[in-house]
Amino acid sequence: MNQQRNCEHLWYGADIVTMRDGQYNIIKDGAIAVDGQQIVWVGPYQEAGQFTPQRSTDFGGGIVTPGLVDCHTHLVFGGDRSHEFEQRLNGVSYSEIAAAGGGILSTVRATRESSLAQLVSSARHRLDVLLAEGVTTVEIKSGYGLEIASELRMLQAIRQLGQQVPAQIKATCLAAHAVPPEYKQTPDEWVDVICRELLPQVAAGQLADAVDAFCEYLAFTPAQVEKVFLAAQQLGLPVKLHAEQLSSLGGGALAARFNALSADHLEYATESDIAAMAQSGTVAVLLPGAFYLLRETQRPPVALFRQYGVPMALASDANPGTSPALSLRLMLNMGCTLFGMTPEEALAGVTLRGAQALGLAASLGSLEPGKLADFVHWPLERPAELVYWLGGQLPCRVIFRGEER
Amino acid sequence: MNQQRNCEHLWYGADIVTMRDGQYNIIKDGAIAVDGQQIVWVGPYQEAGQFTPQRSTDFGGGIVTPGLVDCHTHLVFGGDRSHEFEQRLNGVSYSEIAAAGGGILSTVRATRESSLAQLVSSARHRLDVLLAEGVTTVEIKSGYGLEIASELRMLQAIRQLGQQVPAQIKATCLAAHAVPPEYKQTPDEWVDVICRELLPQVAAGQLADAVDAFCEYLAFTPAQVEKVFLAAQQLGLPVKLHAEQLSSLGGGALAARFNALSADHLEYATESDIAAMAQSGTVAVLLPGAFYLLRETQRPPVALFRQYGVPMALASDANPGTSPALSLRLMLNMGCTLFGMTPEEALAGVTLRGAQALGLAASLGSLEPGKLADFVHWPLERPAELVYWLGGQLPCRVIFRGEER
Ligand SMILES: [Zn+2]
Ligand SMILES: [Zn+2]
Repeated sequence: MNQQRNCEHLWYGADIVTMRDGQYNIIKDGAIAVDGQQIVWVGPYQEAGQFTPQRSTDFGGGIVTPGLVDCHTHLVFGGDRSHEFEQRLNGVSYSEIAAAGGGILSTVRATRESSLAQLVSSARHRLDVLLAEGVTTVEIKSGYGLEIASELRMLQAIRQLGQQVPAQIKATCLAAHAVPPEYKQTPDEWVDVICRELLPQVAAGQLADAVDAFCEYLAFTPAQVEKVFLAAQQLGLPVKLHAEQLSSLGGGALAARFNALSADHLEYATESDIAAMAQSGTVAVLLPGAFYLLRETQRPPVALFRQYGVPMALASDANPGTSPALSLRLMLNMGCTLFGMTPEEALAGVTLRGAQALGLAASLGSLEPGKLADFVHWPLERPAELVYWLGGQLPCRVIFRGEER
Repeated sequence: MNQQRNCEHLWYGADIVTMRDGQYNIIKDGAIAVDGQQIVWVGPYQEAGQFTPQRSTDFGGGIVTPGLVDCHTHLVFGGDRSHEFEQRLNGVSYSEIAAAGGGILSTVRATRESSLAQLVSSARHRLDVLLAEGVTTVEIKSGYGLEIASELRMLQAIRQLGQQVPAQIKATCLAAHAVPPEYKQTPDEWVDVICRELLPQVAAGQLADAVDAFCEYLAFTPAQVEKVFLAAQQLGLPVKLHAEQLSSLGGGALAARFNALSADHLEYATESDIAAMAQSGTVAVLLPGAFYLLRETQRPPVALFRQYGVPMALASDANPGTSPALSLRLMLNMGCTLFGMTPEEALAGVTLRGAQALGLAASLGSLEPGKLADFVHWPLERPAELVYWLGGQLPCRVIFRGEER
């Protein structure tokens, strides 16, 4: 006589795209047994008879994927830059826009002028659009305050968003995003403020889960980034890095030296960056939205990431300047069309690899016993369709922590 | 004493982006008076006191645009090509895929094998996604049947879709889309079948509103297209043309010679094509989805269209091979980012110019008295945001023929 196991909820009637090991690993006509917020079993439906579930739900066909993870966004900001976007397309040059106070500093100004409530409510609209297509985990960075109070307010806004929505929100302190106008001549002083004043307050208030920086000729040098990383390390905060987007500064290797969770962008990463990242287990987060919008031509070295076994994540980079992207599914298509990823790599990039880039791979990113019950049902025949259909909101049912959203 | 006018419904409380003359022409804090299915008045809310409406609706902020028009789609087809899409990204070559029966002929095979009900229901899912973001008029082409019965069945499917959804659906016969496998050695015979058998049946059954063809080295020659156009003309059907997508064959000028409603794609259009189109009032329909997906580099000559005053429309080209696009709003961004259109031109491209490409500009495409009451409310500050936000489904309220959808 078989032993019957109890479970709270049995979901069945669909092919389960488990994404175990970052591959489709599909269970045809599968089922997922959930207890509380956790998956306790995944397997073929015909073996699900061992369970006596309190509830059961028949998906009636289609596929189930892990909840999508957007591991790199700047969703919290004041104002937007649609006006500048239009000016540029009407022939106004970047330098004219910058001279008129435009560019990132216009977002900094608008962010500084925004109250906590304003930051939360404007970001909430964008976050709702992003979540609507199956996203269950989102990372959001600060970095438009560039002064202590405004950076803290951005992080508080991110924490409040995490309380409001049925999704997991991770906060990253990106105070080293751009040199604040007040420190234009003395960027090292701002780095000192970050290290000595801001990060200790962030850590004390548990306002961030990680620390990020922008290593680029127009932002911070490797030496400055290193100071920020050392301060983060002393406070026990993991790091990540905007690296090698526009030029090659060894940012990938720098991130690896600090065991960074991820290095992001990486269009100009070199083989030595990639070898170092492979060693440290640092995830390469690819961001095709900015590449597309800036009409860049230097593609990230996808073949080298494959060769060295560096895991690739994909993210929206949602931000008001270079990637006003509100769709992670569009990034799947762009990752394939523009960067040459395979659909399987792309889907891994917004599930298991995205989770890994946030230090969450032990609990999220694939459908396996012991992981949290975040998953999405799509009325599609095969996972490649998530990548193939260009734009548009595919209908889906989202289960977050075992409950339908 | 002012004379009071009756109207059924007054909509107010938003900025009205009228798109009159293909420009924003915004009425700040405007109102729209609707009687039955028609707009009877558009103006500033403070002048709306002349109306005694039976109903009134306050949008509570935001902007209102005309209902969006997608003037070029191939939404009806059997199967999909996500599997081939994935194979290509996994390194299988076009020629290997073609040798295995892939490419457009796989869609032809799947379409021929589909019943009318199957064609309707699979297209309906895609159409619903497209409509969800403010689209109220959609053109759909046949062209995957490539035999009389299947072409007629596709057109019937399009007519049935038109009965089912709260949107206007226009049908176009594109039997000259590709050479059917049965006529590989004798394409002229298929052209004869189209002209002598198919088009007369289409006209008798009122199954199409226009006739289209694909003029390209891998499809039909200008001389063959001319035969199809002559037959259409004799039956009183307006024409349009897939022209100059991959090479320069004088397709734009050919279309103009037949007073075509539109010539579509046009990456390789020459100045003489464009001069002819300006003369005939033929709309240039630009299709950035296929350009993006095929990673093309030859952009359509937008500056010349402007110089000659050729109206530019934008469309999804939704099709299973080169543009599996389910979002017209994404095409706005791509029209600007990839082709250099301005946001105002792009929005005109999916409203007034799109309507013009379907011969509907007298009744649709802008918010003016006498036109049909198709409009969309967006909780945005300015119309450029429709172009700027990359992907994601912006919330909207859609009014089709005076009724909220
Ligand atoms: Zn970023
Ligand atoms: Zn087409």
